[in-house]
Amino acid sequence: MSEGKTAPSPAGESAMDLRQIYKQGKEALLEKDIGVFLGGVETEFVLHHNRRIMDEYTFRQKAIDAHLKPETSLQILGVPLATPVIMSAMTMPIPAIIDDGLMKVARGLKRAGSLMWTGSPIPSDLAGIKKTGVALAANVKPLANREKLMRQLDELQEAGVDWVGVEIDSGQGTKILDKQMVFDCSPLSFKELTSLRKAVQAPLIFKGILSAEDAQKAVDAGADGIVVSNHGAHTIDYLPHPFQVMDEIVENVGGETVIMVDGGFRRGSDVAKGLAFGASLVGLGRPILYGLAADGEQGVEDVVTGINGELIRILSMVGASGVRQVPRNAVL
Amino acid sequence: MSEGKTAPSPAGESAMDLRQIYKQGKEALLEKDIGVFLGGVETEFVLHHNRRIMDEYTFRQKAIDAHLKPETSLQILGVPLATPVIMSAMTMPIPAIIDDGLMKVARGLKRAGSLMWTGSPIPSDLAGIKKTGVALAANVKPLANREKLMRQLDELQEAGVDWVGVEIDSGQGTKILDKQMVFDCSPLSFKELTSLRKAVQAPLIFKGILSAEDAQKAVDAGADGIVVSNHGAHTIDYLPHPFQVMDEIVENVGGETVIMVDGGFRRGSDVAKGLAFGASLVGLGRPILYGLAADGEQGVEDVVTGINGELIRILSMVGASGVRQVPRNAVL
Amino acid sequence: MSEGKTAPSPAGESAMDLRQIYKQGKEALLEKDIGVFLGGVETEFVLHHNRRIMDEYTFRQKAIDAHLKPETSLQILGVPLATPVIMSAMTMPIPAIIDDGLMKVARGLKRAGSLMWTGSPIPSDLAGIKKTGVALAANVKPLANREKLMRQLDELQEAGVDWVGVEIDSGQGTKILDKQMVFDCSPLSFKELTSLRKAVQAPLIFKGILSAEDAQKAVDAGADGIVVSNHGAHTIDYLPHPFQVMDEIVENVGGETVIMVDGGFRRGSDVAKGLAFGASLVGLGRPILYGLAADGEQGVEDVVTGINGELIRILSMVGASGVRQVPRNAVL
Amino acid sequence: MSEGKTAPSPAGESAMDLRQIYKQGKEALLEKDIGVFLGGVETEFVLHHNRRIMDEYTFRQKAIDAHLKPETSLQILGVPLATPVIMSAMTMPIPAIIDDGLMKVARGLKRAGSLMWTGSPIPSDLAGIKKTGVALAANVKPLANREKLMRQLDELQEAGVDWVGVEIDSGQGTKILDKQMVFDCSPLSFKELTSLRKAVQAPLIFKGILSAEDAQKAVDAGADGIVVSNHGAHTIDYLPHPFQVMDEIVENVGGETVIMVDGGFRRGSDVAKGLAFGASLVGLGRPILYGLAADGEQGVEDVVTGINGELIRILSMVGASGVRQVPRNAVL
Repeated sequence: MSEGKTAPSPAGESAMDLRQIYKQGKEALLEKDIGVFLGGVETEFVLHHNRRIMDEYTFRQKAIDAHLKPETSLQILGVPLATPVIMSAMTMPIPAIIDDGLMKVARGLKRAGSLMWTGSPIPSDLAGIKKTGVALAANVKPLANREKLMRQLDELQEAGVDWVGVEIDSGQGTKILDKQMVFDCSPLSFKELTSLRKAVQAPLIFKGILSAEDAQKAVDAGADGIVVSNHGAHTIDYLPHPFQVMDEIVENVGGETVIMVDGGFRRGSDVAKGLAFGASLVGLGRPILYGLAADGEQGVEDVVTGINGELIRILSMVGASGVRQVPRNAVL
Repeated sequence: MSEGKTAPSPAGESAMDLRQIYKQGKEALLEKDIGVFLGGVETEFVLHHNRRIMDEYTFRQKAIDAHLKPETSLQILGVPLATPVIMSAMTMPIPAIIDDGLMKVARGLKRAGSLMWTGSPIPSDLAGIKKTGVALAANVKPLANREKLMRQLDELQEAGVDWVGVEIDSGQGTKILDKQMVFDCSPLSFKELTSLRKAVQAPLIFKGILSAEDAQKAVDAGADGIVVSNHGAHTIDYLPHPFQVMDEIVENVGGETVIMVDGGFRRGSDVAKGLAFGASLVGLGRPILYGLAADGEQGVEDVVTGINGELIRILSMVGASGVRQVPRNAVL
Repeated sequence: MSEGKTAPSPAGESAMDLRQIYKQGKEALLEKDIGVFLGGVETEFVLHHNRRIMDEYTFRQKAIDAHLKPETSLQILGVPLATPVIMSAMTMPIPAIIDDGLMKVARGLKRAGSLMWTGSPIPSDLAGIKKTGVALAANVKPLANREKLMRQLDELQEAGVDWVGVEIDSGQGTKILDKQMVFDCSPLSFKELTSLRKAVQAPLIFKGILSAEDAQKAVDAGADGIVVSNHGAHTIDYLPHPFQVMDEIVENVGGETVIMVDGGFRRGSDVAKGLAFGASLVGLGRPILYGLAADGEQGVEDVVTGINGELIRILSMVGASGVRQVPRNAVL
Repeated sequence: MSEGKTAPSPAGESAMDLRQIYKQGKEALLEKDIGVFLGGVETEFVLHHNRRIMDEYTFRQKAIDAHLKPETSLQILGVPLATPVIMSAMTMPIPAIIDDGLMKVARGLKRAGSLMWTGSPIPSDLAGIKKTGVALAANVKPLANREKLMRQLDELQEAGVDWVGVEIDSGQGTKILDKQMVFDCSPLSFKELTSLRKAVQAPLIFKGILSAEDAQKAVDAGADGIVVSNHGAHTIDYLPHPFQVMDEIVENVGGETVIMVDGGFRRGSDVAKGLAFGASLVGLGRPILYGLAADGEQGVEDVVTGINGELIRILSMVGASGVRQVPRNAVL
């Protein structure tokens, strides 16, 4: 069907394509009984809702004068990245998927020019992960034991993470189906956020914002960035998808902080929509697990580069010159 | 995935979780041929519609400055309750599910700090139920034989029920699929409601309100409370879900009477939405049957405490300090 | 579940309920290869669309001061009926369903106090049908052979039909799936309608109106009534459901002509919606076939009386005193 | 069911009807492993979306004073056609379906009075195709090698095509599922479009417009026509259906250029909607493949004439006298 097939694919050549990686990775996780982590809280409404909302938007094509290869590299809070596609905060169940799983994720992401973001529990060898050269962020939960929380912040910074993240949306821990997964948390007050801010020298990100009110408080408390997120359907049932609240959040704090987003993103098309809604970075959760389960370090890299390749094609045809130049009306 | 798992789950520890209770209870009812009571009138549109409308709403998260454990206890019309989650009016088919079913429901609800609400027929040993200490409401149907209706009101009050309920929406009896279940009813006039009011010293609740007009008449007739309800899909086909009419009802009579709601509520998330729409109490119908069928008295308690536990987590993350402090815009 | 079951069901007692009649009748038709008549034109979009639109509406309940038994009898264009539920114009495939099918339909409808409406071809013994005492309307198609059409009008009137109907929407004949069923038709002009009007002494109904423009022309041409209809999905694919255009039609010609409706009506709830939208009569197509196939004359009667019984229950609870007193806002 | 069946079907008599051709053709393609061409880019959202958007519209019937046989022939950019139903640009996989496939498509379309539109690769014997007498358009892709692109334009004109088309939406090539199908493309600039315009004497069509911006640029660059299209789901995932953007495009450039449309059109009803939205011609992609696979040259003819026959019936009943007289409000 081609006129010659002499040019390489913009997305590069992978052993498995995204469809195959997702299928094979999911099957592998289900076989290993890690499948529970793919579930959602209580009725699992959020899982299905994420896709439904994503599917409500299509692209406004502007093909004439389009850029052949829109720029996807960017510098965010001091970190240079080859792509706006990053990992969502997550530690469990990575070590259970494959030997040396966290290091493999780190190396795969490093090769893709992406950022690794660890979650709960804090990996014991965070410094080792950082030594792979991967851009690294790490989250803490709002532990009810606030002293422990403060120690964790120190721990992260000593390990040399690039950014410190705080999950403001885990005040009730996490839950999958009817099973409480993480306990011993407690909501953070605005005053506490300002204290955390003082304790953190690195860029500080507050994760789990879903309203203009929380976004404003996060910024007022000194956040360098926020993640608009429904926590991958692992905290509260019937949370909205980020796209339902992005406009009000961007209107309130856009320009004052770096806005990131996650929640059901699977493809370059999803990522392009996130950028159009005003996010600078888009996080992947389950896709990273699928990549790791399907093909280890290579699978993680392939997921990110595959999605980035799709993103380039789409950004091109909506007329954007790069990831920073995607207007809100690129989606309709 | 936890940082320590030392704290107890806010929802307590149950032998079966809600998903298991619902599944096991439903199967048990179907085996016993009691499954017909799970059906809906005529086309069963209402059953499906209830869920669809519930699914249209998501929560506005306000996690910063959230309360760890919002208060769920409240005092309503003289009755102290540990939870806004109560039983919807129902007698049949409880005795057919399990020996001594009504008493088991009473004890389960008592232990959960909830309220029992009997329906048709009026239990023969209402006084015995009340002796369990459970908060107790009891309904009468709008019997065509008005003298019998008046005698029933006396009967309820003599048995010492806390509240008396009158089903204003059963003027055409009840029906499941194509089978008329309850006959011998007749719609009540406003004038008759005022007469009933005079005959009842206890708090009086009119159940089955689905329009501002009926709500206003109920209040004008002296109702202490109303239940916005489509009667669990057992009266008229194609009735709206309460959420479709709550705003107009609250606008008209909010503040003048206690507003309760039922209709397809299954989870803490559903209950939280009911509170956001302006209800003080939320009734459960089929879930109580599932609990009883699955695990007797314990099952009933587990359903209510399970849902209440979910409710606490959600109220917390929408920023509410208690069940009375859930603003309308907590749902979007 | 009843307090006594002494009162008879408002809907009367049938051997089979509606659900059973519909199921058994449909199966019988499919077995006899008459199932093709149940299909729809081309993609069959209209068949599914009819249900979807019907399902968009729910009832505004007004239970207080409701009437126990709203009046369903009415006099329309000189014809007294016990119910607003009538037969939609149809001849084929009735004779193929059962011996003496047309007479059985006539007697069943007569017993139900309903109206029979024949279609194409014009039954050979129309006078015999009329002798059953059933209220009788009969349609003609817009035959390309206009002389034949005029002869048919005379034929109908000689047979003593109560109303004469003209299918203004069959200008392209009828079609099921990809098979043209009726040919030799041609659209009627406004001028021709006025000529037909002069040739018909009986009340004249124009059937197949789906726009305010056609409704206005029909009235201007002297129609005594119109049927808002998408012809049971047998003419043009992707026609709207009557409810999509009823408001504009009622706004234009309401009060100037009798408005009837058909298209996917199956239950009393559907009929109640039709009345709320402004129709005086609601036609049934396939349900009559199901009734006949399931239980002959009795089945036809049972379908109409069953639906009428459902209608009474619903009219009661929307606060209507009769079929003529259903306000537009009875549906929401 | 007919009054005589003496008149021929307006759609003529085919050996297979559309339903059969589509079914049999699709099965044949899947057997031959050509099925991949029926797929869509990445998630295949566009394939399903096309149908969903098409299904949102129904027709405003205007049956009184309707025309029996609306005119479907028209003259567009110097080409006389018997129908507005044409072939969408496509070469692959036609030769793989059947021996001499391109010639059979040409002859089938010629007999139907339609237009053939070739795509990529440019058929080697374009002049031979033209000799069949079929109206012929041919597309070029925006090859990164612009010199080659200019040579292709010359090649097309030398072969005597009636119109020259340029795919402005293939700047990123084409892709099916996760497989890039066509590489070596590059987006065209406005300036390049004006150069192409100068190089083409024949009517010049820019294909793949999905926004008012691109439509305006196309017209400003001298396009004689544009095709509003999402490229049959073979370029970018989550593109809108043409109907989502037709109004803004017609508002901007309607009257200044010939507007054509494609994307999921399968039936006369779809085509009628396209005309109502303002298109002069409607392209078919997969249906042509189905016709060819099912019955060769005859199948191609039958698809076009079948759809045209459906179109006539529908145009008639929306009150249009011809394909040029379908108002925007014919759909609601």
